[in-house]
Amino acid sequence: MSGPVRVPGAFVQATRVERTETQPVGNDGGGVEAGTKLHYTGEIHDGWDIGGNANGGYLMAIAGRAMADAVQRPPLTLTGHYLRPAPAGPCRIDVEVVRSGRRLATVRATLSVEAQPVLALLGTFGEQRRDDGDSYLHRGPVELVPYADCVSMPSPDEGISPALNGRLANRLQPGDDGFRLGQPNGEPVMRGYFALADDEPIDAFGLLLGADAFPPPIFNWVTEVAWVPTVELTVHIRGVPVPGPLAVEFRSRWIRDGLVDEDGELWDASGRLVAQSRQLSLAPRRP
Amino acid sequence: MSGPVRVPGAFVQATRVERTETQPVGNDGGGVEAGTKLHYTGEIHDGWDIGGNANGGYLMAIAGRAMADAVQRPPLTLTGHYLRPAPAGPCRIDVEVVRSGRRLATVRATLSVEAQPVLALLGTFGEQRRDDGDSYLHRGPVELVPYADCVSMPSPDEGISPALNGRLANRLQPGDDGFRLGQPNGEPVMRGYFALADDEPIDAFGLLLGADAFPPPIFNWVTEVAWVPTVELTVHIRGVPVPGPLAVEFRSRWIRDGLVDEDGELWDASGRLVAQSRQLSLAPRRP
Repeated sequence: MSGPVRVPGAFVQATRVERTETQPVGNDGGGVEAGTKLHYTGEIHDGWDIGGNANGGYLMAIAGRAMADAVQRPPLTLTGHYLRPAPAGPCRIDVEVVRSGRRLATVRATLSVEAQPVLALLGTFGEQRRDDGDSYLHRGPVELVPYADCVSMPSPDEGISPALNGRLANRLQPGDDGFRLGQPNGEPVMRGYFALADDEPIDAFGLLLGADAFPPPIFNWVTEVAWVPTVELTVHIRGVPVPGPLAVEFRSRWIRDGLVDEDGELWDASGRLVAQSRQLSLAPRRP
Repeated sequence: MSGPVRVPGAFVQATRVERTETQPVGNDGGGVEAGTKLHYTGEIHDGWDIGGNANGGYLMAIAGRAMADAVQRPPLTLTGHYLRPAPAGPCRIDVEVVRSGRRLATVRATLSVEAQPVLALLGTFGEQRRDDGDSYLHRGPVELVPYADCVSMPSPDEGISPALNGRLANRLQPGDDGFRLGQPNGEPVMRGYFALADDEPIDAFGLLLGADAFPPPIFNWVTEVAWVPTVELTVHIRGVPVPGPLAVEFRSRWIRDGLVDEDGELWDASGRLVAQSRQLSLAPRRP
């Protein structure tokens, strides 16, 4: 914990993991063998939570670091299934390498707290490869007013905002913040900028956090703000962001039968799509 | 194998799995315990392939049946990571129950052929619950011409069509079939009807197949048809289909840097969204 003066690199520190065995990984230069099991410890830090429960993207980032370490490659596509809420405190990540190929490695993991599984994961890891081939982009970045003109998240000190917001420098597009005043705009969309506090750079693990660090878009459709427990979250990493806040859009398309989806698109400051996300959650009941 | 006269229920037969242990599952009425490991055998049947490699949705359906059996609940959201191609022949599915709750159960599995993992999976299982609460649907079903006016898939006997098409009664929206004649319409979209042969009913496992049983939409954007290997496929089951073909739309939105996404939406004959899918694949090179 960094105390009142926030140390630069707080996100990196709060997602640090340590392998509990000392054997080297991938020391043959060809990657770790399929079937290898590795164990990591980490710490769910205080302040990355909503009402005492650690944010889902934050937990995925911790586990993702352990999985990436096991195969020495960054995440390309990662899915997490959320099993129970997690308070701050020590955690353990058990990693199993399913396949380690030349380009891609597939890994599964479980993040546990006090021997109870909190998050089960399955991912494929591999470097992004920029190429000069033709590309098809169905749209440009979400259109937002400039960062400075967007709406700040209230400080957690004000008591109405999740602690998580104190770790971030997120901003909401004006109009998408109506839910805060009990005036949702009626459309399940949430747009704005995602940024870590203190201009900390956003790496692939920061993108995992960014995919789940905004108020759920359903808040702009329901008339009451309530807990929206994530069942499943998948993030596809499509690029490495250049410095600066990410322009993001989260949208629910199908809210029905107690379930709600949420698609996210995250663009970096150069206008490049760097991540896509989709989650399935249990919908809060509309009163 | 059913021989030249196709037996009704061919999909159910071709995705049958058998538990290799005899202990009952969930016999306490409260579901199977977390940590339980179960082993199943199955058979990758001939004729559900593209050029000798079993279709990805078909493999997911086989594994999904084993996972569902383990927790005695149908799939709600299932993710598969594809590790290597699988020919027809015997397969084994190793299932581990991660958490078994009152409503939802989370399960992971590996489908293997000759002791080599082919497909790694992670899913959450639970009954659909229709409720009368308000719903938000961002669109209606994809608009298609009637089934009879859509374009049939050529029979595999003609030698230019995947064997899989012989198991299905899929139809393509006129215009979306241009890729077959080397005249892609330039938009990475593929619309039409998904149906099993002989009007076999489509259950939740049929939806897993349906999420991956159309030509990749990228075929309508590239100028050459080539293998598009799936890295990851996630299917959210949103309902149980009424009888009849499903109206489906598959669309790639971000083709770049050798990667292509594909979003699918599947509606039943009553106009109800029954599944959403997303996959990430390696893009074939545009010549």
